[in-house]
Amino acid sequence: MFRNTMPRYEVLSEDAMATLDKGWRRLMSEIGVEFMDERALDLFRKAGQKVEGNAVFLDPDFVLEQVAKAPAEFDLQARNPENNVHIGGDSMAFGAVYGPPFVREGDVRRDGTMNDFRDFARLAQSFSVLDSAGGVVTEPNDTPLDSRHLDMTYALQTLTDKIYMGNVVSGVNAADTIRMTEILFGSREAIEETPALISLINCNSPLRWDDRMLEAQFEYTAANQPVVLTPFIMMGAMSPVTIPAALVQQITEALSGIALSQLIRPGAPVVFGSFLTNIDMQSGSPTFGTPESGIGLLCTGQIARHFNLPFRTGGGLTSSQVPDAQAGYEALMTLMPTFLAGANWVMHSAGWLEGGLVAGFEKFVIDAQLVEMLQHEFTPMEIDEASLAFDAHQEVGHGGHFLGAMHTMERFRTCFYRPFLNSSDNYERWMRNGAKDTATRAGEIYKKKLEDFEAPPLDDAIRQELEEYVTRRRAELGD
Amino acid sequence: MFRNTMPRYEVLSEDAMATLDKGWRRLMSEIGVEFMDERALDLFRKAGQKVEGNAVFLDPDFVLEQVAKAPAEFDLQARNPENNVHIGGDSMAFGAVYGPPFVREGDVRRDGTMNDFRDFARLAQSFSVLDSAGGVVTEPNDTPLDSRHLDMTYALQTLTDKIYMGNVVSGVNAADTIRMTEILFGSREAIEETPALISLINCNSPLRWDDRMLEAQFEYTAANQPVVLTPFIMMGAMSPVTIPAALVQQITEALSGIALSQLIRPGAPVVFGSFLTNIDMQSGSPTFGTPESGIGLLCTGQIARHFNLPFRTGGGLTSSQVPDAQAGYEALMTLMPTFLAGANWVMHSAGWLEGGLVAGFEKFVIDAQLVEMLQHEFTPMEIDEASLAFDAHQEVGHGGHFLGAMHTMERFRTCFYRPFLNSSDNYERWMRNGAKDTATRAGEIYKKKLEDFEAPPLDDAIRQELEEYVTRRRAELGD
Repeated sequence: MFRNTMPRYEVLSEDAMATLDKGWRRLMSEIGVEFMDERALDLFRKAGQKVEGNAVFLDPDFVLEQVAKAPAEFDLQARNPENNVHIGGDSMAFGAVYGPPFVREGDVRRDGTMNDFRDFARLAQSFSVLDSAGGVVTEPNDTPLDSRHLDMTYALQTLTDKIYMGNVVSGVNAADTIRMTEILFGSREAIEETPALISLINCNSPLRWDDRMLEAQFEYTAANQPVVLTPFIMMGAMSPVTIPAALVQQITEALSGIALSQLIRPGAPVVFGSFLTNIDMQSGSPTFGTPESGIGLLCTGQIARHFNLPFRTGGGLTSSQVPDAQAGYEALMTLMPTFLAGANWVMHSAGWLEGGLVAGFEKFVIDAQLVEMLQHEFTPMEIDEASLAFDAHQEVGHGGHFLGAMHTMERFRTCFYRPFLNSSDNYERWMRNGAKDTATRAGEIYKKKLEDFEAPPLDDAIRQELEEYVTRRRAELGD
Repeated sequence: MFRNTMPRYEVLSEDAMATLDKGWRRLMSEIGVEFMDERALDLFRKAGQKVEGNAVFLDPDFVLEQVAKAPAEFDLQARNPENNVHIGGDSMAFGAVYGPPFVREGDVRRDGTMNDFRDFARLAQSFSVLDSAGGVVTEPNDTPLDSRHLDMTYALQTLTDKIYMGNVVSGVNAADTIRMTEILFGSREAIEETPALISLINCNSPLRWDDRMLEAQFEYTAANQPVVLTPFIMMGAMSPVTIPAALVQQITEALSGIALSQLIRPGAPVVFGSFLTNIDMQSGSPTFGTPESGIGLLCTGQIARHFNLPFRTGGGLTSSQVPDAQAGYEALMTLMPTFLAGANWVMHSAGWLEGGLVAGFEKFVIDAQLVEMLQHEFTPMEIDEASLAFDAHQEVGHGGHFLGAMHTMERFRTCFYRPFLNSSDNYERWMRNGAKDTATRAGEIYKKKLEDFEAPPLDDAIRQELEEYVTRRRAELGD
């Protein structure tokens, strides 16, 4: 997996951080956070926090004590150990888009299906820059609602040998996902010792954690599986319009969720989550790749480090309907700050289109290209005497060229990163090759990947046990 | 104009910088730099430098003495004082694409014409993020070669009231450009006191300054007009394949040209130039927006600051043939580091397509959008008690929304940057509006800008004098 050992780009001064610190302390203790779950309220009450209705007024110092129990870094095991992932520190792990009900391939936009889900899982397996297909890579609308978490988990387990995300629609779904993961890894103990699932717990921002998400959090945290506590903030709608206010709210929400996890199981792995952008104040539409979201992202990294927590943010976000210029530059407007901030867990790294409503096949390839380019850009170069190539200058002299120099011949195969999608063909050659734009070339690449796909090997007995589990549970769930 | 007061992103350690320092000192003194101009060789010889043939073996400490004479920052006057530009420090000035022989509008790619040149000049005038149309915004192939510099300069002077670049094809062309600028600003003294022209002097890398460029440099520097001494490096062809070697060569070339300017006129304004990318080692094609060029750009900023010089680099570079996803993300792969490095003079900020062979009308709009987004992103936010919006939280509480909150109502018009090109329309609305992709929308925007264009006012007497000059010189040049 990728380690980002380049410097972090930090934009908050110490004064600014102190102001934010004062801000979340006040918000946490005076406005408080709602938890729509009795068990959560009980835990907070027993820990001496003030609870009124569903609102918990948390003592900031108590919160920091809980936060200090969470590990700063942790491992996640994949069924192929080569695909194990480390969350935190310099590590950056990348998962595909999460949640879109629709898909786009070429000019066609339609409901996502289970077949699409499987194809995206296959693509995530095929692109080595991705550490995970994520979770709901598209909503499989053609499968029964109550049991589709079983089908999705089974697809992630069998079509990929990378880490995957847990279903969070309900506590029941979470329990099923954990049970299927126990089957894949052999036992509950095996996954409690080294977690194998990472799950997204979204806040119903502002300042409310909803019942179903909390149910899922209880299941996952009790099983020592990491949860990504994520304020879901579109500034102007779910938070005030000022970035500092959104940051303060984000801290309050994330830390309150993290404190809960530590009450459920002290030391359980958690991730400081961030999904932060702004709406267009004229239309109310969410917008992505905006200057405000870029700044918010950079600040989020600095804030997570301030609390010594791994963090999630970023991705290839865009509002664009199609994989065009806007899709390309908006994706990068988020992905570049993602690398500058050194985000540890990057959801939506590939395939996000149309504000997250659409999983795009061509966009998936474009984003994989961007992540790969950035991984190369954020790899420090070596600077030593040999790299200065004085001998090459002696050989070439003034006004010549280095194409045939010894120094070049020794290095030409590996010296520069070679993209798989970008074209640098000259005009004549590009015309001869069909004058294909980037989306067209991306379409050819994903189709070839799917044609060539071979599922990673899986023990027959495990596969059978998983299938039996899915069949039995589907029947129990009435589908 | 834009001032970038965000932190600089620096990736070179002190050790790395020391290694680069040793490298250029050795290259400068042992391999030397060729100057294909007798006057230049004379100046170096008289200053005690070793000259053999056209090669000058420069004493690094002598070079640093010369470099120290150059101003770290300087002003450039535009005929509209509101468009004056500062080069250096926190300032970033943006000019359009420079040099393309071809243009693209929509599906049509063809030779650039004088009409195209004028249209691009009008667009540069229309977009407030651009400080200049630059110079050869496209090559006007339908005008006589010997006198087209007159037509281009006249167009830049009359269709824009921003700063513009000087022609560098020959000393004669440079002298004409200076003379026309004297007419526009009233006198030679007026432009010697505050320069009004900035000119690009490219090195014939590796390590050679060619005769025509040097002729132009002599003219401009003697007139106290800034020159941008620019190593033109496509790594693998014009430099060794290793980035550190390219950086060392870039320092050697740029500083040698700057030293010459200081011998011509001590204290004359100069800019440390960089045009640095790599070729595809399989095809030999130049590539843009690459990881290597991004790193090179960040290093260049740090190096220029090390020598206390203003610097030029960056732009919206791409290899793409059309304004598609690749064009969008490659442009940003260069523009984002341009801002992270705080480049002072940014050529090719708008319109660059197809490796610089094409000036694209749609791409011009896309790039202007990117520069504007980045200018907002690189504007520090205010963080104070008021920005934390505690009162808004008191008003909204848990799980509500901020759309109607007082804090929002007071700020909603200006709180977020509003892009002019990006669409965040939902699917239904986007379809209803014609399902236009970004390039299509960009096409509508530039056509509307050209329709609405009004040339900035110019004194009739000055216009007449300029026209007479162009007519007379055209005749003298035999066109």
